[in-house]
Amino acid sequence: MSRKIWVFDTTLRDGEQVPGAKLNLYEKLEVAQQLKNLRVDMIEAGFPASSEGDFNAVKEVAKQVGNTDDVMITALARAVKGDIDAVYQSVKHAEKPMIHMVLGTSDIHVEKKFGKSKDQILDIGVEAVKYAKTLLPDIQYSTEDASRSEFEYLWSTIEAVVNAGATIINVPDTVGFAEPEQFGELIYKLNDRLKNLNDSVLLSVHCHNDLGLATANTLAAVKNGADKVECTMNGIGERAGNAALEEVVMALNTRSDVFNVHTNIKTKEIMNTSKVVSNLMGLEVQVNKAITGDNAFAHSSGIHQDGLLKSRDAYEIIRPADVGLEDMELVLTARSGRHAVKDALEKLGFKQLQVEQFEIIFDDFLILADKKKEVYHHDLYVIVKNFFAKHEISSNEVNSYSDSFYELIDLQVISNTIFPSASVKIKQGTEEINSSAVGSGPIDALYTAILQVIDLDIRLLEYKISSISRGKEALGKVKVSVQYNGATYHANATDTDVIKASALAYINVVNKIVVENLLPEVTV
Amino acid sequence: MSRKIWVFDTTLRDGEQVPGAKLNLYEKLEVAQQLKNLRVDMIEAGFPASSEGDFNAVKEVAKQVGNTDDVMITALARAVKGDIDAVYQSVKHAEKPMIHMVLGTSDIHVEKKFGKSKDQILDIGVEAVKYAKTLLPDIQYSTEDASRSEFEYLWSTIEAVVNAGATIINVPDTVGFAEPEQFGELIYKLNDRLKNLNDSVLLSVHCHNDLGLATANTLAAVKNGADKVECTMNGIGERAGNAALEEVVMALNTRSDVFNVHTNIKTKEIMNTSKVVSNLMGLEVQVNKAITGDNAFAHSSGIHQDGLLKSRDAYEIIRPADVGLEDMELVLTARSGRHAVKDALEKLGFKQLQVEQFEIIFDDFLILADKKKEVYHHDLYVIVKNFFAKHEISSNEVNSYSDSFYELIDLQVISNTIFPSASVKIKQGTEEINSSAVGSGPIDALYTAILQVIDLDIRLLEYKISSISRGKEALGKVKVSVQYNGATYHANATDTDVIKASALAYINVVNKIVVENLLPEVTV
Repeated sequence: MSRKIWVFDTTLRDGEQVPGAKLNLYEKLEVAQQLKNLRVDMIEAGFPASSEGDFNAVKEVAKQVGNTDDVMITALARAVKGDIDAVYQSVKHAEKPMIHMVLGTSDIHVEKKFGKSKDQILDIGVEAVKYAKTLLPDIQYSTEDASRSEFEYLWSTIEAVVNAGATIINVPDTVGFAEPEQFGELIYKLNDRLKNLNDSVLLSVHCHNDLGLATANTLAAVKNGADKVECTMNGIGERAGNAALEEVVMALNTRSDVFNVHTNIKTKEIMNTSKVVSNLMGLEVQVNKAITGDNAFAHSSGIHQDGLLKSRDAYEIIRPADVGLEDMELVLTARSGRHAVKDALEKLGFKQLQVEQFEIIFDDFLILADKKKEVYHHDLYVIVKNFFAKHEISSNEVNSYSDSFYELIDLQVISNTIFPSASVKIKQGTEEINSSAVGSGPIDALYTAILQVIDLDIRLLEYKISSISRGKEALGKVKVSVQYNGATYHANATDTDVIKASALAYINVVNKIVVENLLPEVTV
Repeated sequence: MSRKIWVFDTTLRDGEQVPGAKLNLYEKLEVAQQLKNLRVDMIEAGFPASSEGDFNAVKEVAKQVGNTDDVMITALARAVKGDIDAVYQSVKHAEKPMIHMVLGTSDIHVEKKFGKSKDQILDIGVEAVKYAKTLLPDIQYSTEDASRSEFEYLWSTIEAVVNAGATIINVPDTVGFAEPEQFGELIYKLNDRLKNLNDSVLLSVHCHNDLGLATANTLAAVKNGADKVECTMNGIGERAGNAALEEVVMALNTRSDVFNVHTNIKTKEIMNTSKVVSNLMGLEVQVNKAITGDNAFAHSSGIHQDGLLKSRDAYEIIRPADVGLEDMELVLTARSGRHAVKDALEKLGFKQLQVEQFEIIFDDFLILADKKKEVYHHDLYVIVKNFFAKHEISSNEVNSYSDSFYELIDLQVISNTIFPSASVKIKQGTEEINSSAVGSGPIDALYTAILQVIDLDIRLLEYKISSISRGKEALGKVKVSVQYNGATYHANATDTDVIKASALAYINVVNKIVVENLLPEVTV
């Protein structure tokens, strides 16, 4: 029997730290549910001390996704009481909760970042573990920047926190500095001592991809005794990202002759998970991304140098069906009934929808199916994403301030070669305001017209539009970043009409600014 | 003195095999020139036997970029006389030309793909090297699928082709199956025997990224004696792509303590090269791509978890300036003179422009600067790309058939919530045709109107629009793929007006279909 490797997914914590990738509560729940379908062993759902929103999201993931004992729910804390409490209070609702805390062990982290002595830092770590242990039995301790730490100090820290009750030791290559052979040796030495100290403690690694080596370092660690790997879907995360779950898992499977280990991952859910994450976070996957990129299986695209490809297995080491590329594509039309749409949504991983939520989404589907001949997976993701976006606003307590928000009532934009111009009708409270403007192009005209109504000192930082479709009109996704009062705000929107999507995204970002800056005070 | 590692770039051959990434002659020249600025040792410029266009492009790269002895120019051949002749005839114009040929050594390749015996294949390879050797002194032999080959047969092949005159032996992990430790051992064994046989022959590796291990395998090979690495910029290439040049080079530099080697690469040209390749090929770089992704240096984006980042060098292993991220951004305005624009273009790697070419580009710059307040790098790339696209059509021999081509004279597209509609005026030869249509959105209306004029049985497969800008109106890039008569055609276009860009891309793809299918015969 081969050794089991535990898969810990941090898409919702490290992955969500990517600028602009923040998810709302409903989106986080969907990703977490899909990670459970993928059968990861542990989900790191967030960093609860960072905001109330994140605290609530972790809590709901613990309640709704952590309601069975086949997945452990955790969240990140620094080694301070406030953070640990926030993690405990949010993850405790899961069947199998865990507290994860992080504290540096490298000289740079200990001295430069904290300005404390090594002994002081070690004591802080031990005290934090002891405190966490009074709350929950399962505690993971991460020795931040471990790969650049002095070995004996790293080991003293591990020894001390294990004796204080830590049940998982995670060794991060925080800055992506490790080289596979050296990292493998480090893990070998640590594992040897750790298993002698307490062989029920799991040894874990968390690798970053700054030099393109996250997957290789993770695999080298597994070869050298690591029990657990930390990954994100599509390799997203801070800077150059983390080890990609799909690469680590498929390498372990494809090269089982070398590794002789197994994971619980249901590989057929890999493509679905990749798509849920990339669509909800708005992070496109590069076409030549290993496993999950559009071109990863060249024969799927049917394009290759003439004469070079005569035998299919000469170029295929993973069967596309094994990662769920088989019958990925279903095509729905206006005549598809509720059952077919519900089925399709469930296949895509959206299994959490309540009846009334589904009905709204189904109505949106019908409107879209009416406009387009065929509705694809991609479109369904967008419909659900839009639903979540709308739902968040209408369900928030800010509802009572709805008079402060702006709503697009109608627009007309004329693109021509002489005077691109736009007219908009925007509602704020009960007031409807019209505005027109000419611009250097249709979007410029549109945004100028909207800004005349809004009258805030907003500076557009970035405007991004993307749309991919097969067949007729595509759903256009627009993302905008603006600056207001020194802070940056992001928002996005989608519509079959790229122009309308552009207007909606701009209105969305304005409403975000309103929520955070311009609402009347609740109490005095 | 540390060992020198030769960097062989195959962006223009393996990279260009990515669907939709095909470059025209002028674009290829620009990429090749930028690769020379980056100081790669060898440029693989194409696969000349594949088409006359590719043959000519390789020839021009050999002439115009290979005109000094600091870069070797090569191109790919299968081990057959026709391919070898095509390579010779195209690369011979370089100061330092080389013939590169490839032939499988794995059982799957030898038996399933070629249906020949191992001895027969070995003889074919030897004869091919002997023939190539009559043409040029420098011959690289690639043992395709080497990592899955039976070792002794692989070695017999290498021994035989070295005795026949091969000067570089390239060991490809064709399907991305290798695992770093095993691959390192393979290279160690091969290098040991090879250097005993003939120590002037270079040992090279070519790794694919199907399991996310291309960079790690390449580095493991270097550690174990490989003299030369094959890479592409941004890791593009067949399927999941190749080892990324920027990752391999920066890992060798950053971890010189482990590798103790050096390359000639001028790392400050890495970002420029990445942008030239991604812009001209239309292949976007994932935001968390190591080294060249937008977020690769997180501190650049200024966003990080509150409180986690107190000391900059705690999270920085590569100085952004070392890869050319410093003063990347210049801002040009309508008042920037010729000198500033020329300077900017040269910084971006466009050093091949002739006076009359520059003048046309400068005019385009002025038009854009007039519409936008500020012109960014990104915009300049697009202007040059557009120039090349137009230039290709006007300089081709197909000029005399210009009556067959369609040209967009004017358009008006109205986006509103009731009847999105479009009117176009299109010219074919001397005839001007007007057409109007209503659609489910503005693009649908526009394409329906154009198709009414074109009257060909074209099916839209994919429509992709992307646009990123800072500040005012962005340049919208539109890519379309259509099907006509069973074949797929791609084209793209850019304009500040995303709607106009959509129209131009569609007209471009129609003209491609015309060129390839509908021109009158030249001779009877």
